[in-house]
Amino acid sequence: MEGGMSRNRLAVVVLAAGKGTRMKSALPKVMHEIAGRPMLRHVLDTCAGLDPDRMVVVAGPDMPSVEAAAVPHAIAHQLEQRGTGHAVGCARAALGEAPFDAVLVVYGDTPLITVETLARMVEERERTGAAVVVLGMRVAPPNAYGRLVLDGSGDLDAIVEAVEASPGILALDLCNSGVMVIDGAALFGLVDRVRDDNSKGEFYLTDIVGIARGDGRRARVVEAPADELVGVNSRADLAAAEAILQQRLRAAAMANGATLVDPASVFLAADTVLGRDVVIGPQVVFGPGVTVGDRVQIKPFCHIEGARIGAGAIIGPFARLRPGTVLADDVHIGNFVELKNAEMGPGAKANHLTYLGDATIGGGSNIGAGTITVNYDGFGKYRTEIGARAFIGSNSSLVAPIKIGDGAMTAAGSVVTHDVEADAIAIGRARQVDKPGRAAEFRALQRAKHKK
Amino acid sequence: MEGGMSRNRLAVVVLAAGKGTRMKSALPKVMHEIAGRPMLRHVLDTCAGLDPDRMVVVAGPDMPSVEAAAVPHAIAHQLEQRGTGHAVGCARAALGEAPFDAVLVVYGDTPLITVETLARMVEERERTGAAVVVLGMRVAPPNAYGRLVLDGSGDLDAIVEAVEASPGILALDLCNSGVMVIDGAALFGLVDRVRDDNSKGEFYLTDIVGIARGDGRRARVVEAPADELVGVNSRADLAAAEAILQQRLRAAAMANGATLVDPASVFLAADTVLGRDVVIGPQVVFGPGVTVGDRVQIKPFCHIEGARIGAGAIIGPFARLRPGTVLADDVHIGNFVELKNAEMGPGAKANHLTYLGDATIGGGSNIGAGTITVNYDGFGKYRTEIGARAFIGSNSSLVAPIKIGDGAMTAAGSVVTHDVEADAIAIGRARQVDKPGRAAEFRALQRAKHKK
Amino acid sequence: MEGGMSRNRLAVVVLAAGKGTRMKSALPKVMHEIAGRPMLRHVLDTCAGLDPDRMVVVAGPDMPSVEAAAVPHAIAHQLEQRGTGHAVGCARAALGEAPFDAVLVVYGDTPLITVETLARMVEERERTGAAVVVLGMRVAPPNAYGRLVLDGSGDLDAIVEAVEASPGILALDLCNSGVMVIDGAALFGLVDRVRDDNSKGEFYLTDIVGIARGDGRRARVVEAPADELVGVNSRADLAAAEAILQQRLRAAAMANGATLVDPASVFLAADTVLGRDVVIGPQVVFGPGVTVGDRVQIKPFCHIEGARIGAGAIIGPFARLRPGTVLADDVHIGNFVELKNAEMGPGAKANHLTYLGDATIGGGSNIGAGTITVNYDGFGKYRTEIGARAFIGSNSSLVAPIKIGDGAMTAAGSVVTHDVEADAIAIGRARQVDKPGRAAEFRALQRAKHKK
Repeated sequence: MEGGMSRNRLAVVVLAAGKGTRMKSALPKVMHEIAGRPMLRHVLDTCAGLDPDRMVVVAGPDMPSVEAAAVPHAIAHQLEQRGTGHAVGCARAALGEAPFDAVLVVYGDTPLITVETLARMVEERERTGAAVVVLGMRVAPPNAYGRLVLDGSGDLDAIVEAVEASPGILALDLCNSGVMVIDGAALFGLVDRVRDDNSKGEFYLTDIVGIARGDGRRARVVEAPADELVGVNSRADLAAAEAILQQRLRAAAMANGATLVDPASVFLAADTVLGRDVVIGPQVVFGPGVTVGDRVQIKPFCHIEGARIGAGAIIGPFARLRPGTVLADDVHIGNFVELKNAEMGPGAKANHLTYLGDATIGGGSNIGAGTITVNYDGFGKYRTEIGARAFIGSNSSLVAPIKIGDGAMTAAGSVVTHDVEADAIAIGRARQVDKPGRAAEFRALQRAKHKK
Repeated sequence: MEGGMSRNRLAVVVLAAGKGTRMKSALPKVMHEIAGRPMLRHVLDTCAGLDPDRMVVVAGPDMPSVEAAAVPHAIAHQLEQRGTGHAVGCARAALGEAPFDAVLVVYGDTPLITVETLARMVEERERTGAAVVVLGMRVAPPNAYGRLVLDGSGDLDAIVEAVEASPGILALDLCNSGVMVIDGAALFGLVDRVRDDNSKGEFYLTDIVGIARGDGRRARVVEAPADELVGVNSRADLAAAEAILQQRLRAAAMANGATLVDPASVFLAADTVLGRDVVIGPQVVFGPGVTVGDRVQIKPFCHIEGARIGAGAIIGPFARLRPGTVLADDVHIGNFVELKNAEMGPGAKANHLTYLGDATIGGGSNIGAGTITVNYDGFGKYRTEIGARAFIGSNSSLVAPIKIGDGAMTAAGSVVTHDVEADAIAIGRARQVDKPGRAAEFRALQRAKHKK
Repeated sequence: MEGGMSRNRLAVVVLAAGKGTRMKSALPKVMHEIAGRPMLRHVLDTCAGLDPDRMVVVAGPDMPSVEAAAVPHAIAHQLEQRGTGHAVGCARAALGEAPFDAVLVVYGDTPLITVETLARMVEERERTGAAVVVLGMRVAPPNAYGRLVLDGSGDLDAIVEAVEASPGILALDLCNSGVMVIDGAALFGLVDRVRDDNSKGEFYLTDIVGIARGDGRRARVVEAPADELVGVNSRADLAAAEAILQQRLRAAAMANGATLVDPASVFLAADTVLGRDVVIGPQVVFGPGVTVGDRVQIKPFCHIEGARIGAGAIIGPFARLRPGTVLADDVHIGNFVELKNAEMGPGAKANHLTYLGDATIGGGSNIGAGTITVNYDGFGKYRTEIGARAFIGSNSSLVAPIKIGDGAMTAAGSVVTHDVEADAIAIGRARQVDKPGRAAEFRALQRAKHKK
């Protein structure tokens, strides 16, 4: 647009004040999670992809979790629920004095919208100079959605609520999603003229379309697939949104060269990174923060979060990798093994019934079945450091803080309480004593006692 | 109905004598389970919701498991499979002398019928004084089902079997489910006139509609959703019925305020109780008898049955809670942990690789990784009692019967064989001895032996 | 067919030279697995059901994994990708001098085709003497597939590529799958006349239909369900093929008398054998080589491969049975238990947190919670042999090679390093020592240190 002084291009207003009564939850609606992250964060991250100059989250009163999730963006408060137009009005101060070319209004409970769609809206406004660009979707059946009525030139003529629509208008399937990009200079001039003289007594943002048209301004529609605009009003909706997001993530993972044997039973986080020729078995759950190298095999029943897994590693079945796990190439983690804040060098193995917490394990080391790092004494957490090519015997307890040198061994069943030097064997167990015939005596006694 | 002497309102006859050849099973068909409970029990529990005066289960010969499941209701035997009319006739003695206003006939292999539907049938009979009320359903395509033909007044005129139906009647989609409510005074007068002069040589209960109409009595239809009337004749049908029931249970759980991240992978029992703001991850299986308090998190890969879980607890991933588990508020149960007949006080934790069987653990206690309660000696089971704020070291074996006092500790790797007093430390492990250089010698020897 | 000298009936040519660029994989396309086995092996095993006299796999250059999977069949190399006609030409030498009645051409990336369909093709050629029998399928919408145009007699008149088809031909939904049975005597005479004068410059095998028709020979079509002909070109296709195969396997398992509580979450291998009245809970994964006896219960979250399970056994939840597991009747394997190369006699039990590797366990023995067979010393693997009716105490470490006699016991928490004779008790643990008041002192010290 013409104009002398420098101005901001884009602001985003995220409406997040709804309580979500139908969620039956103490948590504000937008804080419910999909793919391991609050819905509000999905919306904020998506909008950040537009590189806006300012983002404002409109929260309800007494929603500290929403305010925390909104950081570092500005917060505005809507103290009463008086409609979307009122909510945008509440953002006025937080938007600041500086004018914006355009203001995008999105909803914190519509987490599946894509940055591509939002960018098309912004471009459409720039291209046409429209006062308002509304995001439309085609829904079958459109039911209760407001219908978008276009004029002969393809401009948006009006948004008609379903309850007020004639049969002809009800037959339209292009519906109002509520998402809008609005001319920044015109925004509050339009919003201030919205009235609450309707059955619910609320100020509807959609009314600005009619007001702008009355001013002789244009309004336009950009269309998006309906599955981007699924709104979440109940736990069932939340599950439906999760399912759509998971389908997107799985399809992307497969397109990038990972095999998901049973895609429907693999749960991915929005930030999961999978290398080429990764094979993921059925029933695997990823939390946030996981990077998986090429040719890694993840067997069924694994739960992985906050972990970096090197190329060629074999994980599971029944492995749990917790945050702070860093595995070098070709590491093997087997069944009923938990790692937390633990690093393993190339080719190291921990294959059975093991807990490695706050540990560093050198390359080529073998951790026997049933090994436990005793990292906690009820007060502090302590580290276990194991060198390269060490061999930890089965059922060992490693009492941290402790260092076990390169090439050292521990005898099976040992409690290891002090450092072991390189190439030494540490033994901490009692000698076996046998009592001949004693088992038969014990049984005779017990049988008498239990009267069998 | 009018009448002087007191009479019983309602009897229920459950037909359960079918062998279910297509199940290919040694188990009677109605004993196959959905949601962890035999189909027959689902039907009995549903009918019990009508508060009937008497219930009779018609079993085949040699079906002790059916008779056991029918307790405390009456059993009648149908010794030969001669049709549904014959089966109802077999219930005559078990129904007893006292008259009933109405007799409901249901099927043990139709476990998804709801009490609301049955109540509507009973009410329809009372309202209209009909001799028979038939439960109808709309099926597309109706295929082999008998069609319900209504007269102009909406009364049921006839049930026409598909093989005998004209094209006009075949085009009807209102089908006979077989479930009926019958005038108790008229029941056996109708059933006795049913004949077996049909291609299969069986006595069909459906014939009583025509007989009653011939007597000038009315017959009525009540309609139910087809998914309540899924009949189980094969293992595939059983899986389909399970899926429908699970969908109902999941929808109800979400509507009540629990989040199911992936509803399709959560298996609920019919009696699972979930508090508000419970979050259940993917791949969680509930057996019978589970109550979950508010704000509990159940992470993926948990198997829970017969357990009571207090508010704010965190369970899993990979936790198994068996019957008799009672967890106070804010308990943490981590991965590869099994509890059986075990109680834990507020805030107690058992986070890794642990078996707690026949145990009581006080509030605030911490159970170290790899702890095992040694509760069985091959003959009896013994209890472990741990006080409040105790600290059980990793890899401890607690040999029951044993008591560990408030604030006591056990050293990692200890075998604890006798009681530990409050605030004491118990140590039952050998001292560590180191053999310098011995690991290197061992490897040299083994390499020679294995010729590497 | 008439003819004097003995001749071979059938040869099979499997085209497997495609790189599968869209798989984004270092692995040749046909080596990607469904139901735990490379696609190529599915095709080879299916074709083997026709009992052909010779099978040739046409591999691309530098595909050692394909050549290994093709053993013991003949390999031909297609050094350049010049079309299906060229690929079949490459098989000429490998097919050998001896003539065949018929040559079946199939594709290594179409793993779901059934032997019944292939047999119908072979029979159709024998019945009609056709030069070519093409396998057709009906696809909605047929999109890019070549259409099969039949003449008035039902013979195949032509295969018309979609890009060259008139609207009338495009409206046909009978499509070319590419699979053919060709008159063996005519094969190379036809193939040699295929030309590459098309937009892609490739030799299309489909062209032999037109050539044969020009020679006055007949061509025929056999039709198969489209889901047998799903071709795999991407990881998403691979997942779709896996899903179809799993549905087939699950339906067959249920039809044979096993209950799958949640069929969609049970993964079967192509060779899984399930007895009657087996009940499989949700979330169970079978690898290859599993046989399950009658009345076995497999609870949720089990991973089973290469295992034989006797009648009446109870497995899981959370059990992992690895190759070489052989369980007699009525064995119980509980949670967080791993078996590898381990045999258990009738009624033996291992119910909690146990690793049994390279072990033999006699009937009626009980393996306590937390037991670990120490079978590996970093160089060799050694066996643990436990007799009948033995009782292994919880948290025992059994250091192999070791023998524990019939009726012997080991004390909980013992490290057992040498053989235990029958009916003896072995103890290898330290005595418990108590330090009164020491836990309270420790806490005071730690609180000071951690400043709480």
